[in-house]
Amino acid sequence: MASSDPDTDDPLARFRDRFALPKGVIYLDGNSLGALPKSTPGRLAATIAEEWGEGLITSWNAAGWVAAPQRIGDKIARLIGAGDGEVIACDSTSINVFKLLTAALSLQLGRTTILSESGNFPTDVYMMQGLETLTGGRVGAKLVAPEAIDDAIDDDVAVLLLTQVHYKTGRMRDLAATTARAHEAGALVVWDLSHSAGAVPVDLTAANADFAVGCGYKYLNGGPGAPAWLYVARRHQNRVTPALSGWFGHAAPFDFVDEYRPAAGITRFLCGTPPVIGLTALECGVDLLLEADMAAVRAKSLALAERFAARMQPLCERHGFTLVSPADPGQRGSQIAYAQPEGYAIMQALIARGVIGDFRAPDILRFGLTPLYLRFDDVDRAVAILAEIMDADAWDRPEYKVRAAVT
Amino acid sequence: MASSDPDTDDPLARFRDRFALPKGVIYLDGNSLGALPKSTPGRLAATIAEEWGEGLITSWNAAGWVAAPQRIGDKIARLIGAGDGEVIACDSTSINVFKLLTAALSLQLGRTTILSESGNFPTDVYMMQGLETLTGGRVGAKLVAPEAIDDAIDDDVAVLLLTQVHYKTGRMRDLAATTARAHEAGALVVWDLSHSAGAVPVDLTAANADFAVGCGYKYLNGGPGAPAWLYVARRHQNRVTPALSGWFGHAAPFDFVDEYRPAAGITRFLCGTPPVIGLTALECGVDLLLEADMAAVRAKSLALAERFAARMQPLCERHGFTLVSPADPGQRGSQIAYAQPEGYAIMQALIARGVIGDFRAPDILRFGLTPLYLRFDDVDRAVAILAEIMDADAWDRPEYKVRAAVT
Repeated sequence: MASSDPDTDDPLARFRDRFALPKGVIYLDGNSLGALPKSTPGRLAATIAEEWGEGLITSWNAAGWVAAPQRIGDKIARLIGAGDGEVIACDSTSINVFKLLTAALSLQLGRTTILSESGNFPTDVYMMQGLETLTGGRVGAKLVAPEAIDDAIDDDVAVLLLTQVHYKTGRMRDLAATTARAHEAGALVVWDLSHSAGAVPVDLTAANADFAVGCGYKYLNGGPGAPAWLYVARRHQNRVTPALSGWFGHAAPFDFVDEYRPAAGITRFLCGTPPVIGLTALECGVDLLLEADMAAVRAKSLALAERFAARMQPLCERHGFTLVSPADPGQRGSQIAYAQPEGYAIMQALIARGVIGDFRAPDILRFGLTPLYLRFDDVDRAVAILAEIMDADAWDRPEYKVRAAVT
Repeated sequence: MASSDPDTDDPLARFRDRFALPKGVIYLDGNSLGALPKSTPGRLAATIAEEWGEGLITSWNAAGWVAAPQRIGDKIARLIGAGDGEVIACDSTSINVFKLLTAALSLQLGRTTILSESGNFPTDVYMMQGLETLTGGRVGAKLVAPEAIDDAIDDDVAVLLLTQVHYKTGRMRDLAATTARAHEAGALVVWDLSHSAGAVPVDLTAANADFAVGCGYKYLNGGPGAPAWLYVARRHQNRVTPALSGWFGHAAPFDFVDEYRPAAGITRFLCGTPPVIGLTALECGVDLLLEADMAAVRAKSLALAERFAARMQPLCERHGFTLVSPADPGQRGSQIAYAQPEGYAIMQALIARGVIGDFRAPDILRFGLTPLYLRFDDVDRAVAILAEIMDADAWDRPEYKVRAAVT
């Protein structure tokens, strides 16, 4: 007889035990900071004690440190439909946005506008604005409403900077269609896949994508402030002279010559010395994710979201929650978000009860749905706890209204 | 009766046991990668298992992650004569060079040249050249011979990018005098203190310095690819709008607004999300260094170098080694370097015997002298082993002549 318990039937259920999750917590914030893989502490301890402590400088070669950015990049590539040598792990998402915007601009002489949408993830917008300031306005940072992007791609748009899955609402853009539309208009696209990689199936090759960046500490489970990554389509790589032209992107860094000469391929997009300890933790997270089938991840993500939305429906009616994610599950990433005027205090009350989600200003409760370590039962219990909080007005306490530095 | 053994008399001797050093190795490469403090593995394990694993997203506040760049910056400040709020730990040295060059240029409207010396550490030069490319030549990257710097500071020089202690030779510039000379000519200075911080006494405040950057993985013992740091004199901080304007440098990053507004003070020089794990390791190294007296560190460094040079003298005469560091110890940092045409193979032979130094192209053997974990006896034995290798031509083997990716 078939079970009716979706957790029993879940083909990804075995992954939950691969993470070190705190007891008594329902973690709906893996899209802000992914959970700790059980393999990470031991691997890091070995990197510290053996590779650094014992091997010292020789570990750059002997322990493979020097090749880590490319090696991990090739692994991430498999999650996003990129080829070997098209992805490299390095720096932060913000820095990588700068690298790729300047790369795209250098390929688009005569066009001077970077186009993005208002309400995009702030660091993307801020990096555009910094580039405008740096160039004394020769490069323009233009924001339009999300739905106005297509019409705004005029002859001066050099590059679009778009996030595939919106950080608040989870709204998912059609990567291939938008890329094609931009290319028709002579523009390039830098995709921010921070909320996509490891969360939804992505095929950069099929989309004929130009550039992409992404975060290491969300669905890749690379740890707090993990190194980020960037993707450059092979056809563009050797046409770009990087603006952030550090020694690890040099063709022969250990020749110590005075003239910058970029390495061939993706390596030229490195800048400083690779952050070995952070890269090691990132690799543990990526390795674990590579064991899972991305189609199964997506299927479970959709099922978790459907269950979450169904259980939230009475709360929307009783307590003024409004779904701000697209109603169509196919248009969402692996998260679901609701607006509620008292969202901040409600989230604090949830956290106090062990349900960790994210608040995003001004009024959004965001729930990340990470199929590798979330159960259907977690969804049921999380919404039940939220219902208890709302029915008892338990969020209405002064201590839940004090804003912390980071939430 | 007074001992004549300098290791017995060494006031810093107790620090050696605070490091996890491999047996059978004499490590003369702490200026490439510092050794592992014994406190680091336990502290990192707690950050991983407790702060990340148990605390998850709440650790940004509860475990102090969000304040780590400023907190560690304030600690580094004490090593370099800077004030609280003038140093921040972040990104790589290369990225920080870019931040500070663009900052200096923005304060120097009408001047367009970045001046440095040929043979400076490559990444510094490459970052200058990238900025020249990025601006289409509106900013000029100019290199002159080291001794020609003073005469080259003309009315178009906006900023000098100089390394205090040269990475190959250890030659030390007079930080205060050069800064004063530049200021007289209307120029600003970005100092690269990668081979200075934790190695020699530095007083940025007394020198009226403008900007500085430095590395976390050399004398600060922060681990491979550790986060770097940057210094901005308080008088300049709020006059600069950063070019790399990421969300962690925003005045209110968690308001998620569309307009970049820089944070007050040093925080605006942050860019992306801080690399927590790397910062944790860096803090362990800095904390240990802060226990030592920098005057004692310098005194021992000078004594180690004097002993090394004295023992090398016969080898210079017999085997063609040439001191390429300044003969005056007061003009050197905490390292000593010799040229020898077969330097690469000789260094490989030394490493095979457990004496780890650094080769730097084309022919330089570089020996880092790190007073916290090096004994006078190590110096004696290192040079004795080198003498054995030279006297027996033991370096003259094919396997010592194969160049590895990183040496």
